[in-house]
This record gives sequence, structure tokens and C-alpha cells, in this order.
Amino acid sequence: MKALVYTAPRTLEYRDVPDPTSDTVIEVKAVGICGSDMHAWAGHDDRRPAPLILGHEAAGVTLDGRRVTVNPLVTCGTCDACKTGRDNLCTTRQIISMPPREGAFAQMLSMPEQNLVTVPDDVPLAKAALAEPIACGWHAVRLAKRALDRPLNQSHCLVMGGGAIGLGAALVLAAQGAKSITIAETNPARRAMIKGPFDVIDPRETALPTVDLVIDGVGFAATRASASAATRPGGVIMHIGLGDSDPGLDIRRLTLQEITFIGTYTYTAEDFRETAQAIFDGVLGPLDWFEERPLAEGAAAFSDIAGGRVAAPKIILRP
Amino acid sequence: MKALVYTAPRTLEYRDVPDPTSDTVIEVKAVGICGSDMHAWAGHDDRRPAPLILGHEAAGVTLDGRRVTVNPLVTCGTCDACKTGRDNLCTTRQIISMPPREGAFAQMLSMPEQNLVTVPDDVPLAKAALAEPIACGWHAVRLAKRALDRPLNQSHCLVMGGGAIGLGAALVLAAQGAKSITIAETNPARRAMIKGPFDVIDPRETALPTVDLVIDGVGFAATRASASAATRPGGVIMHIGLGDSDPGLDIRRLTLQEITFIGTYTYTAEDFRETAQAIFDGVLGPLDWFEERPLAEGAAAFSDIAGGRVAAPKIILRP
Repeated sequence: MKALVYTAPRTLEYRDVPDPTSDTVIEVKAVGICGSDMHAWAGHDDRRPAPLILGHEAAGVTLDGRRVTVNPLVTCGTCDACKTGRDNLCTTRQIISMPPREGAFAQMLSMPEQNLVTVPDDVPLAKAALAEPIACGWHAVRLAKRALDRPLNQSHCLVMGGGAIGLGAALVLAAQGAKSITIAETNPARRAMIKGPFDVIDPRETALPTVDLVIDGVGFAATRASASAATRPGGVIMHIGLGDSDPGLDIRRLTLQEITFIGTYTYTAEDFRETAQAIFDGVLGPLDWFEERPLAEGAAAFSDIAGGRVAAPKIILRP
Repeated sequence: MKALVYTAPRTLEYRDVPDPTSDTVIEVKAVGICGSDMHAWAGHDDRRPAPLILGHEAAGVTLDGRRVTVNPLVTCGTCDACKTGRDNLCTTRQIISMPPREGAFAQMLSMPEQNLVTVPDDVPLAKAALAEPIACGWHAVRLAKRALDRPLNQSHCLVMGGGAIGLGAALVLAAQGAKSITIAETNPARRAMIKGPFDVIDPRETALPTVDLVIDGVGFAATRASASAATRPGGVIMHIGLGDSDPGLDIRRLTLQEITFIGTYTYTAEDFRETAQAIFDGVLGPLDWFEERPLAEGAAAFSDIAGGRVAAPKIILRP
């Protein structure tokens, strides 16, 4: 099969690789480019050493003809975390695009059967591939509701970043009735693309509102600093982004104002299924904010994202 | 009256000041030295500018003869935080020892009546003065129980620091049935003084255990780094200490391992009353780990603490 192989920092080669054979084999029809793929491509993720097939936001068709979207997180089902409903923290978790599992920027992908969610015939597979990034926000909102001291419908919310993680989280907040939602996004072209019940602001030009909940879908020192300042006393910061590992949090304010900071990683299998169902049910809006390109032209897509030349919150590649 | 007045960095003068007249006046009989008093004395707390009477851990006798311990946090009772049970986050909160309120290193102190908790005759006032530091741990443990994904009796706990904040939190954890409790304390003399159902370790010599809950009663970059490493995936860090504002948290691990970091500030009025009652009921142990000195010799006590020459987790001054 053909695959887009990460061979060295900032280098992707579209080339022949062996077909996968284990588990259930899926012909990949749509696969999104994630910020973490960008980090790996830039050579900044030591969990993803070259040579490697990246990509973990996939939907496709199994060899026996089922249309599916793929939960890329493979968990054991038997450890303490798995048995207590926190399977995203499985002690032996694996995710495709990280050794020993190859990723989905390829014509085919192998996955355990239990990682597949069937997609209704009327839902395009490119839209179904958004289940993965949106599930991150679904999970974060679920944890946030538990941590907040008031219901979501009384909570003002701020989302840092209007990429797929941030926008996905904002759509989940909207679907679940948050009182208000502001998205802070610095890219003007992307700001113009974002539609929904949100205030969309440029955080360099407009003061951030004071809110009950911040969801940081970016995860840089600057966004953590902004989140620290914008969260009201007693409020909550959900931290999804893995932008950098620099400081940024205002530890003193978090302490004196009793702010909760919760790191969140992916989603549980149940979160993933619920997110996919919400997409199928249409409760997360039209989900038309992605751009599609051929997998063979993936290298240019990575360069365009890195160069700030992409307005869409998500590029989906078609093998 | 006589008071110990902070007049300049590292300088305390025992001198005459005007008697307090407002609210209820208490003759102070016992008042503890807190780490935050030490910071102010060192000139590191811009919330506490000289000249100022420090001290906020007080017990004494009202002019009409009632033995009381003092909740030093003055709240409005009408703001959103006060009305939702988070009065420690009152938007106009004041604490004695911070302008506009003078502190308790003095022969007399004025306080609103609702800040006083009556002390039974058989409880020494020095012990009753421990309600304030221990209430910080009481509050942190209450928030931690809400954040943890398993009951406290199934939770392994690590407390950073064996001062009154850390030891108090450890005693609360023990009283509430925590599965195991380790206290990390670098001062060997203090380690030798700590008695209770704890493992007491030197974190420079003994590897920290992996735990469900860390309570950081110190709040330095080094303790936050240790807390980041010792908390299991999905676990909780409660951050009480205000040691410094440097980084220390391992943001990447907190995110990838979904660790919750909660800043905590003081206690609610209900936490304070519950802590005082727990002391009166004897459920927090003998509470004999303080050393008493005359208020007139307070300057030497500050120097001794700063010089590492005090083993006791708490010095209580007697006006």
C-alpha cells in the first residue's frame, strides 16, 4: 500500500510500505492532521521517532464493507484504570501513530475490532473522522462539569484556540448548554471561518472575559498564562493542548484564588462512542469546517499548516 | 497594649501600640507563627507592608470572659462566593495581619463576633490556636475527596512538608481514614518530632512513593516538581503552600497523565468550625507538637525559624 511516511524532521515521503495484516484491516478514506502530528513532523515529539506513519484521526471501510470511524487508543481492558472507567489512563495504552503501532496516513490501517464505531450511511466519512478530535473536548467537558461548582448552564466559558480541538470543545459546550462561550484565536482567516453560538476574539486585541471555565486547546505558556488570568476565583482550567512544556501558569493566583487545573488526555472509549453518536445525531452543528486534500499531497499540507497558510481548523487527507 | 510590630524586613519591634476598640475585643493568649508570617517578615509578601502587626493563628479570652479561637478570615456573607459556600473566596475577603486589619501578635485583637468559636474549658488555648493551620488541611482534604476518583480509604497520600500545614493535613487524612500517609520533610530534627500513623521520610534520601493524592504544604518549585512526579495517572495534587511563585509543575506529565492540580486558600467558616470541633473531640491526636515562647521574645523566634533552629512544626507565642 501507499503511505505518507515521516522519515526525518519536516520530511514526509509518500511511498510503498507493507500492507497491515493483524486485527481488523480498514481501508482509510479520511484522516485528519492533528497538532500532535505537526509536532512530530517538526521533530519535537520523542514519542514519535522517524521512520513512522503518523495520523490517528481516521475513518474508513473495513475489508468486509462496514463504514467505521476509528478510536485510535488501544487499551488493555483489565488494569485498574480500565476497570474504573478511566481507560484513557490504561497503564499499557497505545495509540496508532506511536510505536509499536503505525498511524493512519496510509491506504490501510489495522485496528482491534472494539476500536471501531459504525458510521450511518448518511454521514460522510470525513465528518466521522472528526470524532477523534471532538472526543477530546467531549472528555474535557465531562471532567469539567464534575469539577465546576455550578452547572454548565450557569457557567461562562473561554476556549483557547480555534483549531479542531478548541472548536470541537466549544461545540460540545454549546450542545450541552453552556451559558456563554468565547473562542480566542489569533489567526484572522481561521476566526472568519468559525461559525456557531460563540464570541470569537483575537486575544492580542480584545481583553479576555473572566469566566468559570477555560478550556485550553493549545497548551502553550502564553495560553496557560492567559487561562490563569481569565479564570474566576474557584474556577476551572481544562488543559488539553500539548503545545509546549514551558511554565505559564500563575501558581500564586491559582493558589490564592483556588483555581483547579486539570490535565486531560484523549477520551475514554465511552466518550468516543458518545461523541460519534453526537456527530451522527447532528447536535454538534454542520461540521463543515474542514478542508480535504489527497494523501499523496500530505507533505504540502503539513508545510501549509506550519506556515500559517491554512484557515480551516482541520485538514483531512484522502488516501 | 504591647504588640510585636513588623517594621522593616527581618525586623520586629515589641512596643506600645493603641488598643483595638471595634467589634469584639479578645485578649490574645496564644498565637502561632505561620510560614506566611515568615515570608512577610523576610520582606517577600507585598500584601503585608511594614509597619504591620503580623499573626493570624490566635486564641484568647474575650473581654466578657469567653475562651475563643479565632477564624481570621473576614468575609462579607453576601457575595456570590459567600452565598455558594465558598466564603474563603469572598470578593472582599480580609484576613487579620493584612491591611486594613492588624494581626494577632499583640495583647489584644478585635474581631467580628461571628469569627469566634468557643473553646471548651478542658482544651488549652494554645491547642485551640492550631485550629487555623489545621483548617487549611481540613479544607484541602475536603476538596481532594471531591476530586479523587476513589474513596479516601483506598487512597495512598503524600504530604510535602512536616510543618503545621503539612502535619495538620496529615492528621486530617489519618482521622478520615486515608489508606496510607507519607510525610516528606527535609529537617531531621522535625522528622524526629513527628508522631502518628505516618511514614516520615527525607525526600532527598528516600524515593517518593507513587500516590493517589499529594498535599503540598510547602509550595516551592521543588515540591511542585516532586508532586508532579509522585502523583499517579488520574491523581490529585492539592497545593496549599505559598513558598514561591516559580514553575516546578511538570505540565506535560499533568496533561498526558490527566492529573488534577487544585490551588487551595485557607478554609470556609464551616471548615474552621469543623476543624475546631475535631480538635476539641481529640480526633486529631494529642497536638503536642508546638513550642511556646513569650510574645516579647518573638523576634528571636522568627530568627530561629529562619535559621532552621526550630524542630517543632509550630511556635506559639504567649502575649
